[in-house]
Amino acid sequence: MRNVKLIIEYDGTCYAGWQEQKDQITIQGTLKAAIEKVVREKITLYGAGRTDAGVHALGQTANFNTISQIPSNRFPFAINSHLPPDIIVKSAQEVDAAFNARFSAKWKVYQYSVHNDRIPPAINRNFCYTFGFPLNIIDMKKGAELLIGEHDFGAFRIAQISGQNNVRILKRFEISCNGKYVDFLLEGNAFLHGMARRLVGTLIELGRGKIAIDKLKDILISKDPRLAGPTMPAKGLCLMEVRY
Amino acid sequence: MRNVKLIIEYDGTCYAGWQEQKDQITIQGTLKAAIEKVVREKITLYGAGRTDAGVHALGQTANFNTISQIPSNRFPFAINSHLPPDIIVKSAQEVDAAFNARFSAKWKVYQYSVHNDRIPPAINRNFCYTFGFPLNIIDMKKGAELLIGEHDFGAFRIAQISGQNNVRILKRFEISCNGKYVDFLLEGNAFLHGMARRLVGTLIELGRGKIAIDKLKDILISKDPRLAGPTMPAKGLCLMEVRY
Repeated sequence: MRNVKLIIEYDGTCYAGWQEQKDQITIQGTLKAAIEKVVREKITLYGAGRTDAGVHALGQTANFNTISQIPSNRFPFAINSHLPPDIIVKSAQEVDAAFNARFSAKWKVYQYSVHNDRIPPAINRNFCYTFGFPLNIIDMKKGAELLIGEHDFGAFRIAQISGQNNVRILKRFEISCNGKYVDFLLEGNAFLHGMARRLVGTLIELGRGKIAIDKLKDILISKDPRLAGPTMPAKGLCLMEVRY
Repeated sequence: MRNVKLIIEYDGTCYAGWQEQKDQITIQGTLKAAIEKVVREKITLYGAGRTDAGVHALGQTANFNTISQIPSNRFPFAINSHLPPDIIVKSAQEVDAAFNARFSAKWKVYQYSVHNDRIPPAINRNFCYTFGFPLNIIDMKKGAELLIGEHDFGAFRIAQISGQNNVRILKRFEISCNGKYVDFLLEGNAFLHGMARRLVGTLIELGRGKIAIDKLKDILISKDPRLAGPTMPAKGLCLMEVRY
């Protein structure tokens, strides 16, 4: 059995997220069907990150086992010919049998893009969230600094699940201004459900002066998901890279 | 009568171009209908550039006359509330009665974006043309230099029209590499129909070694539209700015 690793880009606008679901069009389901047409056997497709509905990816990573003899460098062209244009396999590579896109992942890199203007863009409308109030970038950078490290991020998941281990390492949380855009780069060993979008949502509240740095510290320590800021809309989020 | 100037951004993917046409969904028709809902009178909408079907704009400019008393800075919000999300009025400003978006325009700036890779992107798929062969950037820059200036650009229009004056000034024609993208910036006093896309198409033929610099010079001098390179697909073209 060969083990094939894929790097995938997608525009998540029209999909119910990565994970295969009954009666829903998903990235995993669409990609799996395309691969099966190429290898002519049933496969299991393992994905690194289960991106939510509307979230995008420039560097989603997945793997599957196959007995097919198709050379690895032919896979992108062969699979892409069965995919809609909003999902693209960028590269394929044969890897060690032990490699699993999800469990072998060491770091995931996400970007959240805020269009900080009162008027939304037309061209980039599906890839950012437009926020019309001024943001204090210096305050947000201080807040991001405070969140970096190994913490129980229970306050920043969409809903609390009892008994779950919420300790994760947030290695990078950087904010950069590019014209009218404020971009948030997050790198962590793993992310709780909704964590990237709630971390950004809480910094946005800090940036517009609704909460102070001390309050942010309290939210983190509380582990209480009722206290953190809002979960930002999916369309601004993009899975940039998975590191192994 | 007030004269109102608008700056408009649009994703041209789903439109039959700028110019209003019977039984076709166009940018001008859609925008005019939205403005008329706001000012509650029939208007004439003058646009700076009649972009083709599928061409985009970050800085299309238009103007209309109205007796409406709505303050200029309220127009973007009022008009946008009647527009689909792929057309956005970015700003509105009251201007001199003599101003006409088309005839007052001094310079127009276009960008053509080539994704120079064998695999197309998913996210940016509607805003670039993917070209898989290697391009010689140095040769293309030499070709662009040669085309700058006041010339009869008859060779670079989609079809010859007898008796038409094809003399235009191409002030800038710059090529820059941004990751996998090769971007062409064109600034001119006016463009013949299809001129921007054929100039780029001819440089692409130069860049992949299909024609030489001397041949490019011959094409320009010939004024014969049968000799120039192909008209590049519309989706890679964007009207960036109109200067007055």
